[in-house]
Amino acid sequence: MKLYTVLSNEKEIVTVSGKSGALYPLNALNVNVSDMNELIAEWDNIREILTMNLSEINANESKYLSIALQDFKLLAPIPRPKQDVACLGVNYHDHKKEAAAGIDFVKTAETIYFAKRVNRANDPGGLIPNYDFVDSLDYEAELGVIIGKDAFHVTPEEARSYIFGYTVINDVSARNVQKRHQQWYLGKSLDGYTPMGPCIVTLDEIGDPHDLDIRCYVNDELRQNSNTKYMITTVEEAISELSQGMTLQSGTVIATGTPAGVAMGMNPPIWLQSGDTVRCEIENIGILENTVQ
Amino acid sequence: MKLYTVLSNEKEIVTVSGKSGALYPLNALNVNVSDMNELIAEWDNIREILTMNLSEINANESKYLSIALQDFKLLAPIPRPKQDVACLGVNYHDHKKEAAAGIDFVKTAETIYFAKRVNRANDPGGLIPNYDFVDSLDYEAELGVIIGKDAFHVTPEEARSYIFGYTVINDVSARNVQKRHQQWYLGKSLDGYTPMGPCIVTLDEIGDPHDLDIRCYVNDELRQNSNTKYMITTVEEAISELSQGMTLQSGTVIATGTPAGVAMGMNPPIWLQSGDTVRCEIENIGILENTVQ
Repeated sequence: MKLYTVLSNEKEIVTVSGKSGALYPLNALNVNVSDMNELIAEWDNIREILTMNLSEINANESKYLSIALQDFKLLAPIPRPKQDVACLGVNYHDHKKEAAAGIDFVKTAETIYFAKRVNRANDPGGLIPNYDFVDSLDYEAELGVIIGKDAFHVTPEEARSYIFGYTVINDVSARNVQKRHQQWYLGKSLDGYTPMGPCIVTLDEIGDPHDLDIRCYVNDELRQNSNTKYMITTVEEAISELSQGMTLQSGTVIATGTPAGVAMGMNPPIWLQSGDTVRCEIENIGILENTVQ
Repeated sequence: MKLYTVLSNEKEIVTVSGKSGALYPLNALNVNVSDMNELIAEWDNIREILTMNLSEINANESKYLSIALQDFKLLAPIPRPKQDVACLGVNYHDHKKEAAAGIDFVKTAETIYFAKRVNRANDPGGLIPNYDFVDSLDYEAELGVIIGKDAFHVTPEEARSYIFGYTVINDVSARNVQKRHQQWYLGKSLDGYTPMGPCIVTLDEIGDPHDLDIRCYVNDELRQNSNTKYMITTVEEAISELSQGMTLQSGTVIATGTPAGVAMGMNPPIWLQSGDTVRCEIENIGILENTVQ
């Protein structure tokens, strides 16, 4: 199931796509939730009816009323994450080599975890702000994992059952700010630095999250071209390690790191400039495109 | 004004202390808010009536009904912060020297900022969990700053007007976890690692936040003994720098760093053990005491 949050008639609504790609508001499927966070929290009670009603729609889409394209604007699937995004740093083998040139870290076997404040996730098509104190704006295409049920002290084997679904995240980074303050938090947390979308694909539709092509284009030039199988710490290992002492609440978003090909790894780096378009895409999830202001 | 959140008859209520120290529920002062976050967000509309009604109570406290001591349990003033706590690292001159022995950072003039996930702030008197994978549990007494109004791109001179008040925070840290993952996030973010309280003292009652004695005792042994005047980056500078590109929303909690005297700085370190009691106190705010599980 592909779930989208859209703005329609000035109201934020959660929708699901039919086979044709048309979007249907959940209340037309007899499901009433105020937003995606509520849908995630109530998923165990909602999944069955939603699945049933969606297959009815898919059996004869022409009978049902979808939202007309001109009547909505796509928003980030979770416009206001309940907490900051938990992130994995340097989590692809090839990115590990290039990253050492640009930011401070030690190559060890241990996973790097940091946080990214997200006051509001940036929408598909939204502008990435171009702050005057940032001289090294960079992109990072990442697989986003959405936690479904509160997870505490779970094993890697149990981890899968706590996942609600997956999305695409661009972990936009101000390298000069990230490096200046040693800890990466502030350089990752500026307003508009977390484009997310276009949708959440529910767990059941992604067999193995470690077999998805992941790419990033800047102005149609292919910059990142990898596969999630090259992750160092897996999704399940990360959920297990993070949750050993820190409850991952329902709705938590985890960004799982980026493959090689970011600007920081180029010699010389080609930082993002005003007007550049960044397109992040992950197989079976979708395309997330944003332009620098 | 000193504001407390308490649990009374299984309900969380916001209270204010009278001159005598007795606590009065805000609804007895004609102010109805569901929790401290709502009070902070609505402060501009509430302050005047609350101030007026509190001075009426203070003029003749015996006429008014406070909550009896046996009828409530003190909670963290903001039990569920709306976002992770933004923290300053190594922000006292004397702590800078001792910290270099225990954790990785470079001594520069730039402030270190990181985040601390707080699923639920730990209450005054609450137990600090003793996780089996933590072998180096440490305390950090810190001045906590509560943001009142959304702050974006403010100058240090403007910063004061965005502050709602101050509290005491113990930035409990698992040094082995903090160090293992390079970025400090996970080692600071375990459930129960953010004791906060006992109250929030509103801005108007603290003249200069950089002239407050700050102390920490472990089992009555004085370990930290300093003054907020020894902070390197001031409260106003931190609010200004953080807000240059990252909106500090109403209710944001900032932990401003700890002075020397943490276990990590001892040779050999005397880590917190099961049964140890940690008492953090800041002049004009109060005492925050917690015991290790």
